[in-house]
Amino acid sequence: MALGEFDLIARYFKRPVRRAVLGIGDDCALLAPAPGLQLAISCDMLVQGRHFFADVDPRALGHKALAVNLSDLAASGATPRAFTLALALPQVEEAWLQGFAQGMFALADAHGCELIGGDTTQGPLNICITVFGDVPAGQALLRSGAQAGDDIYVSGSLGDARLALESLLGRITLPAQALAAARERLERPTPRVALGMALRGIASSALDVSDGLLGDLSHILQASQVGAEVHLEATTQLIAASALWKSATAGFDQNLLQQCTLAGGDDYELCFTAAASLRTAVQAAAIAAQTPVHRIGRITAEPGLRVLDAQGQPVTPHWRSFDHFKT
Amino acid sequence: MALGEFDLIARYFKRPVRRAVLGIGDDCALLAPAPGLQLAISCDMLVQGRHFFADVDPRALGHKALAVNLSDLAASGATPRAFTLALALPQVEEAWLQGFAQGMFALADAHGCELIGGDTTQGPLNICITVFGDVPAGQALLRSGAQAGDDIYVSGSLGDARLALESLLGRITLPAQALAAARERLERPTPRVALGMALRGIASSALDVSDGLLGDLSHILQASQVGAEVHLEATTQLIAASALWKSATAGFDQNLLQQCTLAGGDDYELCFTAAASLRTAVQAAAIAAQTPVHRIGRITAEPGLRVLDAQGQPVTPHWRSFDHFKT
Repeated sequence: MALGEFDLIARYFKRPVRRAVLGIGDDCALLAPAPGLQLAISCDMLVQGRHFFADVDPRALGHKALAVNLSDLAASGATPRAFTLALALPQVEEAWLQGFAQGMFALADAHGCELIGGDTTQGPLNICITVFGDVPAGQALLRSGAQAGDDIYVSGSLGDARLALESLLGRITLPAQALAAARERLERPTPRVALGMALRGIASSALDVSDGLLGDLSHILQASQVGAEVHLEATTQLIAASALWKSATAGFDQNLLQQCTLAGGDDYELCFTAAASLRTAVQAAAIAAQTPVHRIGRITAEPGLRVLDAQGQPVTPHWRSFDHFKT
Repeated sequence: MALGEFDLIARYFKRPVRRAVLGIGDDCALLAPAPGLQLAISCDMLVQGRHFFADVDPRALGHKALAVNLSDLAASGATPRAFTLALALPQVEEAWLQGFAQGMFALADAHGCELIGGDTTQGPLNICITVFGDVPAGQALLRSGAQAGDDIYVSGSLGDARLALESLLGRITLPAQALAAARERLERPTPRVALGMALRGIASSALDVSDGLLGDLSHILQASQVGAEVHLEATTQLIAASALWKSATAGFDQNLLQQCTLAGGDDYELCFTAAASLRTAVQAAAIAAQTPVHRIGRITAEPGLRVLDAQGQPVTPHWRSFDHFKT
């Protein structure tokens, strides 16, 4: 006999809350931020075929569904606190639910972020998580604070998720080792929560790279009413699978690597700006957060986004960012 | 040319926030509840074919998607404050989006509840709203406070939404006037926000009736570890379309009306309990909130839920509540 909705919630998702005032099981959950803290809120919806393949490991999917939301908290410099989960499922498959819950809760527990409510229904697979974090009043990292002369940084690695996607779609053939490394980044992205918190008071602006570096950086430029120069060589070495692919020689495509890095999407790294006078502080924050950061360019008063080659000459990238309604 | 995701958000959903610290356009929205207030949070996901028909008026759908969430705030006695919207759309249809946004914002504005963030993506139509309300610390209405001897109340009318559904599915034929009245309740439910707020400090427990009265009431009984007696006659007169149908004579089905009222679902009325000594206070709250309330039974120390006929004899209803994973 199939599990009913209430049994399903109780079995896989109901856990006692520790920090929220009230969790799952009533009409509303209750949260009370401590005095002086603001609540940072973000919401992401993942759809099968658009954000993940039907045959993805449910553990990885549970991880990723929460990770992309934690990444938004990271980009705001917020400390994760709680989340709600709304889930549409074509049918109740217990093994799938168990895996999904395990992947999700493992990441939630690692960040002290507890499930406080949600909804389940029957329908085409859809995962919608809303996440809540604390940030001291006035200290949230915004997109709007970049100033001319600021350095531009990116954390971690960029482009691997897209490289894996190209391979999984059969458009390229990657050596097994390179695919495994890239696929891990696609399916189990690392939200840069510790880095975001460490950058409070240091970064002048920040966001997370979800749709591709150039497209996302342009949101900072628009919100801050500035321009930017990005150094091509500094970015294209940020793709982790590159060396693994290059060493295997066959089919290596430097142009594709550039495209994946600059416009790939699904990276969930932080892109942020900081005054040049704060380079030491930025590196200290990176070390404290155990997260590498890379300086890739600078903010300019002149509007527009220019990509420069090794000789400082502008190149014209023809790649655009991922847009969920353009293909 | 199709609208892109960012154009779409800007055109239909981006409005300046008035009360939140930060609204749409950054990685996170920011909310700061005033001192002494807790944040009540609820989340509902609506799926085409499960919660609404494909040809539903988008204005009505925009209204309902928010209404079912506001209803959860009402059941907690919370004051609506803000919401996030995640939307999966098969394609961008501007007329549909415009209607949906109009219906949603009309209700949002009526309750001073502002859109602070969300997500849009391509996929099978899915609407997920997470809503935020304020409630003074310790005053939220919960499911767990009902005590033996308390009266049981229901607000407004019950059963019309299900009656309309039966007609729209072609299982019964309703006279046009009765269908119109019932359909209005199915497609444009009224969240009982003012009543919920007025019942703070009066109701001992509360929830909103979304899956059917008996099933939802049993959640109060379970959470409060009590039982209940419900008077059949007091409930079956709560269906608004009843008189319109009965007067048209043809096909009138008293048994179906009972089923719709006791187990229909989609009503979004409040079911609540209050001490018998507070009957005057309950009526005063109902008048203040301009929302009729009906006393339909009482809480008992003896566990279980008994439905009694006019002679006080137990009847055995064979109707169960709606469960999204049982059909």
